[in-house]
Amino acid sequence: MSVTLSIDAMGGDFGPQVTIPASLTCLQKNPNLKLIMVGDQTILNELLADALITFKDRISIQHASQVVEMDEPPQKALKNKKDSSMRVAINLVRDGEADACVSAGNTGALMATARFVLKMIPGIDRPAIISTLPSVFGHTHMLDLGANVDSSAEHLYQFAVMGEEVVKAVENIERPRIGLLNIGEEDMKGNEQVKAAAKLLENSSLNYIGYVEGNSINAGNIKVDLIVTDGFVGNVALKSIEGAAKMISTKLKASFSQNLLTKLAGLVAYPVLKLFKDSIDPRLYNGASFIGLRGLVIKSHGGADALAFETAIHLAEVEVGHDVIRKISERIEKALEQKVTE
Amino acid sequence: MSVTLSIDAMGGDFGPQVTIPASLTCLQKNPNLKLIMVGDQTILNELLADALITFKDRISIQHASQVVEMDEPPQKALKNKKDSSMRVAINLVRDGEADACVSAGNTGALMATARFVLKMIPGIDRPAIISTLPSVFGHTHMLDLGANVDSSAEHLYQFAVMGEEVVKAVENIERPRIGLLNIGEEDMKGNEQVKAAAKLLENSSLNYIGYVEGNSINAGNIKVDLIVTDGFVGNVALKSIEGAAKMISTKLKASFSQNLLTKLAGLVAYPVLKLFKDSIDPRLYNGASFIGLRGLVIKSHGGADALAFETAIHLAEVEVGHDVIRKISERIEKALEQKVTE
Repeated sequence: MSVTLSIDAMGGDFGPQVTIPASLTCLQKNPNLKLIMVGDQTILNELLADALITFKDRISIQHASQVVEMDEPPQKALKNKKDSSMRVAINLVRDGEADACVSAGNTGALMATARFVLKMIPGIDRPAIISTLPSVFGHTHMLDLGANVDSSAEHLYQFAVMGEEVVKAVENIERPRIGLLNIGEEDMKGNEQVKAAAKLLENSSLNYIGYVEGNSINAGNIKVDLIVTDGFVGNVALKSIEGAAKMISTKLKASFSQNLLTKLAGLVAYPVLKLFKDSIDPRLYNGASFIGLRGLVIKSHGGADALAFETAIHLAEVEVGHDVIRKISERIEKALEQKVTE
Repeated sequence: MSVTLSIDAMGGDFGPQVTIPASLTCLQKNPNLKLIMVGDQTILNELLADALITFKDRISIQHASQVVEMDEPPQKALKNKKDSSMRVAINLVRDGEADACVSAGNTGALMATARFVLKMIPGIDRPAIISTLPSVFGHTHMLDLGANVDSSAEHLYQFAVMGEEVVKAVENIERPRIGLLNIGEEDMKGNEQVKAAAKLLENSSLNYIGYVEGNSINAGNIKVDLIVTDGFVGNVALKSIEGAAKMISTKLKASFSQNLLTKLAGLVAYPVLKLFKDSIDPRLYNGASFIGLRGLVIKSHGGADALAFETAIHLAEVEVGHDVIRKISERIEKALEQKVTE
């Protein structure tokens, strides 16, 4: 099946310097992939001169005269940057010319623009950001990672329903195990929203396994496929984990750099340390999906390098291949019908 | 200066098996330390027979006939366990017989009991849990770690005021750098409570440096001495970091256990890996302080081993030595006077 993606070629901390090599690698790897590179056509024409020949009709350029800055307030971007690479890339999804869009641009502006251009799936109150994190069991999906603050119980429930469809599609599992992030596993723990969301989840057809704590994201006692939480909490957890990984790798490196002896030990251990480093490489987990919208938008880390951006493009290919947005929409429609019938 | 601590000898997953060896090591290390071991006197008399001779008047036993279970609901413990080792240990602080209490018991029950027995410092609405986490800059203090959910802006502000006194005392720094945990560093980010708390902190005399994100706990770009957040968020962040550290060490171990060659490399690198492991040993960060109460209670991790419990006892010694509770009380009193004068 052919997949067409629009790439915000100018987005992220490094723009075309990263988005182009990543895009070309993906085209090379997947013969069914087509890419529309969105951005300044003078710049892109020059950088893509060879690629336009090599990949012929599988790559094209769509001009956009503006770029959203990484620290630009979302509302300003929405108002003043109607011809930004980000906005034009999302327009292509709305118009059915691309199956999904990938951007490393400013998260707030990307979410605001995606929401404005694509609109919500009817029945969903708020879009959410979902991503994959490594765990001792393989990996875990988590949402919301920062689209929402102060999520109500009903919002948390909707996140679970949408997240389940993503996990089912991407992981090819029938009934993903869903946990609700809390500060204890006992019934009495947590805030009111979480307690009320637990009731909704218990009474649903979802495979809800109960409360999970922060350590369950990476290394709980039992496997959980999907962790549901408010965007404030999810974002803090995600970034806390990033900080912990960075501190640990800094200290590991420092331990091997102390003196000649430790450096020699490091040389001997190098192949093993390299394997270890690769096994927790955050670039292999880059890419978060905005869900709840009538079109798929994948957000890459702003500081992504080519390998990381490649991972985000690959995530878009997989989710388009599994028709995630249609599945979420159908699921929500069914849920709404049930509500009306009840 | 002599310090007297009451030890909940029966608390935690392992009870006297852990609390006694840790206590004896501390007595050995600090000749100015006195301990009151609280628990079943038949058990303690037998286990402490030698110690009662070695340390003479520096160790004593206070009988308590009950033990609070690790999963016992706080309200039940409060009602039915009036002679628990936890309760009696806290009573000793209230009665001025101990300067602080250390317990590895059930957090919820410990907090409820401490609050009930010791009462709040006038002017403080809610107690908070503060602890130290390792960072690339040394370490960072963070509160609240789970005593409160749904903290208001005023609560967050009070946490900052109390936390500052702890950091000043323990770290011996004049004006600790205080950050407010948020999901972005820009002004517009975050929920209403956090935005309102930022205003209160900006207008205070505290050394407030602005919003910090989750990665700043362990590895931010700038040093922050104290991170302030709601207990739900703080607890999730703390446990997410625990999970990340566990996953990473599991993967590191697995990398060196793959085959004979990697095992040999591990043997060569062993001294370095050991140093590294020690540098991130969570047992050296065990112990959280309950603050906002009219007496000091230190909570140890329930699963603490003797070394970890020793760290918690040491934390109590330091905070008592620096008269943290009196300093917080005076500070709050002054702040209240100012409010009245304004």
